[in-house]
Amino acid sequence: MSKTEASSGAAGNKDYQRLVELLAEVTALRQSGGLLFWDQQTYMPRAGARARGNHLATLSKVAHEKFTAPEIGRLLERLRDWEETLPYDSDEASTIRVARREYEKATRLPPDLVVRHSRARTRAHEAWIEARQKNDYKVFRPALGEMVDIMREVADALGYEDHPLDALLDQQEPGMKTADMEKLFGELRQGLVPLVRAIAEKADAVDDSFLHQPFDRETQMEVCREAAGAIGFDLETRGRIDLSVHPFTIGFSRSDVRFTIRIDEGFFNAGFFASLHEAGHGTYMQGLPERFEQSILHEGASSGLHESQSRLWENIVGRSRAFWEFYYPRLQKGFPEQLGKVSREDFYRAVNKVEPSFIRVEADEVTYNLHIMVRFELEKAVFDRELGLDDLPGAWNEKFRDYLGITPPDDLRGCLQDIHWTFGFGGGFAGYTIGNVASVQLYEKALEEHPGLEEEFARGEFSSLLRWMNENVHAHGAKFEPQELLQRVTGRPLDAGPYLAYIKRKFSDIYGL
Amino acid sequence: MSKTEASSGAAGNKDYQRLVELLAEVTALRQSGGLLFWDQQTYMPRAGARARGNHLATLSKVAHEKFTAPEIGRLLERLRDWEETLPYDSDEASTIRVARREYEKATRLPPDLVVRHSRARTRAHEAWIEARQKNDYKVFRPALGEMVDIMREVADALGYEDHPLDALLDQQEPGMKTADMEKLFGELRQGLVPLVRAIAEKADAVDDSFLHQPFDRETQMEVCREAAGAIGFDLETRGRIDLSVHPFTIGFSRSDVRFTIRIDEGFFNAGFFASLHEAGHGTYMQGLPERFEQSILHEGASSGLHESQSRLWENIVGRSRAFWEFYYPRLQKGFPEQLGKVSREDFYRAVNKVEPSFIRVEADEVTYNLHIMVRFELEKAVFDRELGLDDLPGAWNEKFRDYLGITPPDDLRGCLQDIHWTFGFGGGFAGYTIGNVASVQLYEKALEEHPGLEEEFARGEFSSLLRWMNENVHAHGAKFEPQELLQRVTGRPLDAGPYLAYIKRKFSDIYGL
Repeated sequence: MSKTEASSGAAGNKDYQRLVELLAEVTALRQSGGLLFWDQQTYMPRAGARARGNHLATLSKVAHEKFTAPEIGRLLERLRDWEETLPYDSDEASTIRVARREYEKATRLPPDLVVRHSRARTRAHEAWIEARQKNDYKVFRPALGEMVDIMREVADALGYEDHPLDALLDQQEPGMKTADMEKLFGELRQGLVPLVRAIAEKADAVDDSFLHQPFDRETQMEVCREAAGAIGFDLETRGRIDLSVHPFTIGFSRSDVRFTIRIDEGFFNAGFFASLHEAGHGTYMQGLPERFEQSILHEGASSGLHESQSRLWENIVGRSRAFWEFYYPRLQKGFPEQLGKVSREDFYRAVNKVEPSFIRVEADEVTYNLHIMVRFELEKAVFDRELGLDDLPGAWNEKFRDYLGITPPDDLRGCLQDIHWTFGFGGGFAGYTIGNVASVQLYEKALEEHPGLEEEFARGEFSSLLRWMNENVHAHGAKFEPQELLQRVTGRPLDAGPYLAYIKRKFSDIYGL
Repeated sequence: MSKTEASSGAAGNKDYQRLVELLAEVTALRQSGGLLFWDQQTYMPRAGARARGNHLATLSKVAHEKFTAPEIGRLLERLRDWEETLPYDSDEASTIRVARREYEKATRLPPDLVVRHSRARTRAHEAWIEARQKNDYKVFRPALGEMVDIMREVADALGYEDHPLDALLDQQEPGMKTADMEKLFGELRQGLVPLVRAIAEKADAVDDSFLHQPFDRETQMEVCREAAGAIGFDLETRGRIDLSVHPFTIGFSRSDVRFTIRIDEGFFNAGFFASLHEAGHGTYMQGLPERFEQSILHEGASSGLHESQSRLWENIVGRSRAFWEFYYPRLQKGFPEQLGKVSREDFYRAVNKVEPSFIRVEADEVTYNLHIMVRFELEKAVFDRELGLDDLPGAWNEKFRDYLGITPPDDLRGCLQDIHWTFGFGGGFAGYTIGNVASVQLYEKALEEHPGLEEEFARGEFSSLLRWMNENVHAHGAKFEPQELLQRVTGRPLDAGPYLAYIKRKFSDIYGL
C-alpha cells in the first residue's frame, strides 16, 4: 500500500462518512448471513433448515433494501466531484467506485427477485441433498429449473450487451465477458487436451495406490491443521476448521475466517489438499487490511482472484517437490504404516498423478480445467436454449467423454457433484479456471522478486510468499477488478501462457514426455 | 389449545396479514442475532469478538428500526376494531395485543440507545471475561458503570410509575412490579432463612463427598445427552448440546434449539444438573406450536415461566427419588468406580445436600432463592443510589454473610460470577425466583391431573408430564402475561405457598427435621 492509498482527507467529507456508515450496515448484514450459512453447513440440527431458509431470505432482503436505499444513490451522486479529485487507488475513491458499481447492479434487481432467489437457494439446497442421497438427478431437476428461470430473470434485470451470461459472470468477475472466457478455454483446450492424451499413454508411469488405503480421521485432521497452520493460516486466534459435506471457506471479518474440509478415510488427498486449498482462500481473507473491516472493500477482487490463492497453496506450493521435502518426514511420522516405506519422490509423483476422473474437487492439475470447461459450456448451452434441463445429465456425460475420455457411471459422479447450482446458475465456475491461470502468473512474479522461494519451502518457510501475496494482492481488498489487479501486479492481464508452460514443464518431467 | 384459539378468519384481514409479514421479518432478524450470540459463546475464534459486536449491534438496530416502523404503528391502530371482535386468546388477538405492548415499549427507546446498549453489551462481555481471568472486579467496574447508566436511560425512556426497576422488570416479566417481587422475597426470606439455619445444624447428615471426585469428561457428556434425551429434549433432529463457559439455551425456531453446558471434571453436579436445567428450557422452545414459527408469539411467556420449566426438570424431577430409581443404575454403569458402592438413597441425599455456597448455578434448592435475593436487593440499592458501584463487592459479601452465613473469598466467587450484568442491569434475576415458585405451582397442578407421575418417572417415562406442559404452558407461546398464564392453568396467580411447602416437606425428610 502506498501512502496515497490510505488517506485523502475523508474525515472532512460528511457525505463520504455517511456512505461508509450505511455500507458498514450492509456489510454487517451480509457477514451475519455468512455465519448463518456456515452454521447450516456445519452444526445446524437437520430440522432447522426451513427456519434457516427464512432467516437467510430476510437477511438478504434487508441487506438488499439497505444497499439500494435512495440515500445511497444520492450520496454516490453527490460524491462524484469529490471522487474526481482523489487518486484512483485511494481507499475513498475505490470505496465510492466499487459501491457505485455494485449499487448500479443491485438497484436493477427488484427486491422481490432477491427474495425469490434466496428462497430458491434454500429449496435447491434441500433438493440437491436429497438427489445426492438418492443418486437421482430427477429429484434435483425441478429446483434447478426454478433456479435457471430465476437466473435468466437476474441476467435480464442486470442487463448485458452480448450474452446473458455476461451479466452473471460480471457479478463474480467484474469486467470479464463470456467471450473472454471462451477465448481462454480455447487456448487451454488446445494446450491441455493433447497433453492429457500423451499422459494417458503413460498412465502407469505413476503409482498412487498407497494414497488409497486407510488413513484414520483424527490423524488426518491433525495433519490438515498442521499444514494449514504452517503455510500461515492463523488458527490460533482468527480462524478455525470444521467438517462439512462440501469444503468451503468463509469469513465474517479478517479476524474470523473459517474453512471446512471433508475427510475421506480411504483416500489421503481428499482431506489434505482440500485443507491447503481452503487455507489458501483463508489467507486472502485474513490478509485483508484491518481498516477495511466494515468496508465494502473487505472482500477479494473476484472469485477467480480468490481461487488464485487457493490453487497457489494447494498446487503450486502443496504439490511441489520443495513442499514435501519439508513436510514428508512429518507426514510419515503420522502415518508410519501407510507411508513408512514410500519414498518422497514416489509420494511427490503420486500426489501429482494425472488421471481423468469424475469429481472436480479431486481432479489433478492437468484435467481440472477440462472439468470447468464442461460446466461452462453446458451453462451457456442452457442459456442459449440449445440444451434442455432434462438432457443435462446426458450432455454432461457426452462432454466428459469428449474431453476426458471417460463416462460418469451415475449422476452423483456427474452433474450432481457440485453445490454451485444450488446458489445460482451461470458463471459460477469460471473463477476456478481464472484462478488456476492467475495463480501461476502471480507466483512467477513473486518468484522473480524472491528467487529463493523453493529453498524456503523446503525448510518449511512460507512467509516470504505469503507476505508478497499480502502486500500485492490481499492489501487491495476489492479495490480493483481482476484484470486491473493482474495488470498492476504482474504487468499483464490474465494470460494462459505462463499457466500452460508451468503445466507442460511440471508434467513432462513427471511423465518423462 | 381450544378450537377458538387457532382460527378467526384472519385470511380476510389484509392489515393483519401485513402485520404478520412485518413481524416475521423482525423475528427473523432477532433469531439471526441469536445464532450470532450462540456462536460467540461456542465456536467463534477469539479475535472475532470485535466484528461480532458490530454485527450484533447492526442486527439489533435493524430489528428495532423494523419493529418501530410507523407502518406497524398504523396497522396496530387500524386493527383495534377488528381485535375487539376476536376472542382474547385467539392467535390473532394475541398477536395484535403482544405486538402492541412490545411496540409501545420499543418506540419509547431511541434507536441510538438501542445501539449503545448493544455495543455496551459486547464491551461488558469482554471486560467481564478479562475480570474473571484476573479475578478482579475493578477490571469490570468501568463497563458495568456504563451498563448501569444505559439501563437508567432505558428505564427512563420506557417510563414507570413507582420505581425505575419496574420498567426493566416488565421487559422480562410483563406485568410484574418491583413491589410484587419484594413481597415475594419477603415471604421466601421468612420461610427459608430459618430452614437454612436448622439444616446448618445438621450439616453432617448428608455426605456428598463422592460427588467431588474425578468424573471423566466424555462419559459425563454422554450421560448428559442421555438424560436430556430421556426427559424429552429432541436431540435427534431439532436440537444439540455444546460446551461453553456459562450454560445457556437458545432457539432459532422450535426446530433448532440448542443448549450449552460446562463440564467440571471434579464435580458431578455441575454438568449433569445444568444439562437437565437447560434441557428443560429446551422443551419449552421445542414445544412452541409450529404455526407460531415466524410469529411474535414464538417465545415463552416470560423469563420466569421459562425458568419454571428448567427448574421443574432440574429439581422437581431431576432431584427426586423417583428419577434416580430410573437413572441411578445407568449412571452407576457409566461411573462404576466412583459410584459402584454408593447406595441410591445416599446418592439421592447427596444431590440434595443443602450447603450455603458461593456460586448460584451450583446452589441447592433451599439456598438458591437467597442468591437471587442478594442480586435483586443490590440492583435496587444501586438504582436508589444507596449503593455506589465501587462498594458493590463489599455489599455483595455482606449480604452473603447475612442470608447464607458465609463470605465469598474473592470476586470470582462473588459479584463476578454471573454473565447477566453484561447484558443489562436490573430485573434480570427475578425470573429465577419466579421460576422456582411457579415450577411447584405448575407441577402440583399436573400431579392433580396425573397422580401417577412419580411412578412413571421411576420407569423412565416422562412423556405425561412433558405433554401436560406442552399443552398447558408451551402451546400458548407468548400469548399471556406470566400471571395470566398461571391463573389460567393453576387457578391462582404466583403463590409462594406451594413452593415453601414443597421445600419444607422435601428437606425435612432428608434432614430429619
